[in-house]
Amino acid sequence: MNELVWHKSTINQKNRNKLLNQKPFVLWFTGLSASGKSTLSNIVEHKMHNMNYKTYLLDGDNVRHGLNNDLGFDEASRVENIRRVGEVAKLFLDAGVVTFAAFVSPYLKDRENTKDIVGAQNFVEVYVNTSIEECERRDVKGLYKKARAGEIKNMTGIDAPYEPPIHPDIEIVTEKMTIEKSVKQIVKYIKNKITLKNE
Amino acid sequence: MNELVWHKSTINQKNRNKLLNQKPFVLWFTGLSASGKSTLSNIVEHKMHNMNYKTYLLDGDNVRHGLNNDLGFDEASRVENIRRVGEVAKLFLDAGVVTFAAFVSPYLKDRENTKDIVGAQNFVEVYVNTSIEECERRDVKGLYKKARAGEIKNMTGIDAPYEPPIHPDIEIVTEKMTIEKSVKQIVKYIKNKITLKNE
Repeated sequence: MNELVWHKSTINQKNRNKLLNQKPFVLWFTGLSASGKSTLSNIVEHKMHNMNYKTYLLDGDNVRHGLNNDLGFDEASRVENIRRVGEVAKLFLDAGVVTFAAFVSPYLKDRENTKDIVGAQNFVEVYVNTSIEECERRDVKGLYKKARAGEIKNMTGIDAPYEPPIHPDIEIVTEKMTIEKSVKQIVKYIKNKITLKNE
Repeated sequence: MNELVWHKSTINQKNRNKLLNQKPFVLWFTGLSASGKSTLSNIVEHKMHNMNYKTYLLDGDNVRHGLNNDLGFDEASRVENIRRVGEVAKLFLDAGVVTFAAFVSPYLKDRENTKDIVGAQNFVEVYVNTSIEECERRDVKGLYKKARAGEIKNMTGIDAPYEPPIHPDIEIVTEKMTIEKSVKQIVKYIKNKITLKNE
């Protein structure tokens, strides 16, 4: 082994797509806390999995407790949180995996940055549009209550901004649509837009 | 959609393993710069891919230029570099993907930490053991020359430490073994140790 030949991997995204029999993309769910991102992304992932898509879901549960456990919720941390998720999504895309991401991701600029990182043609933005009043009513994690009580800071929609998408690929107005219909709309969009088989 | 049902994803690692028809693990290559980590991991990945394993390779090329492009090469940055790679490897493992990682990863403690993150039973440590003299002779990236000239600092083996594994799962002494034999040794180990089919 004296003469090592240095080279880039001969296995690339195209090889992986072929083996996985799919053309991967990133489905990015943005919206307020309790808007329904997790519910929708979980069900859509389940549907896609049952159609033999090879999928993975990045969300607060697996990212905030691991990779990004060094980050808080101030503006700089939120920016870095989304940057890292975008970079990880790019790696999953490169690995051939259909990647879901469900994050508040409140800043337009960060979502644009993510789109640049993974490539615009691979990025599908899903705006889970639920009014702040309805989110606060649901308050599944009790975060709005805590924010109102001053126990937590930088709560999106309360004392931190949310910048809604201007031209989302998909918009789900959860207060006007059943979960079932919402999921159907997303899956239909994906199936229309994305070539499932390898190019 | 007034009554959102919040729940964890019903798609878990077991479902993904079944769909991908494999039990994933992390193969972690450690060794000096120019020791042969990239060459070996690339070839092993290629072999595994050809055996229909669904694989991905994390290395300096795709991680240092993306996710970790905010990190330098001082000790704290190296620790954080490896921590993040460990966390990303854990996500890939959860996604069902056989994950290769090729990083100098000079500190024992960091590799132990990575083993903890991904789970000891999922972690295979490959020590690419090449003498500093041989690495410096190869000097594929010209880094040793730059380090000797004082143009770069914190070069492992020159002015930064390398702590070799005490009980690596696999040790490849590249100066005594051909690439072909080294690859065979690694693939054999994997096939013996890891149950390929879903449990």
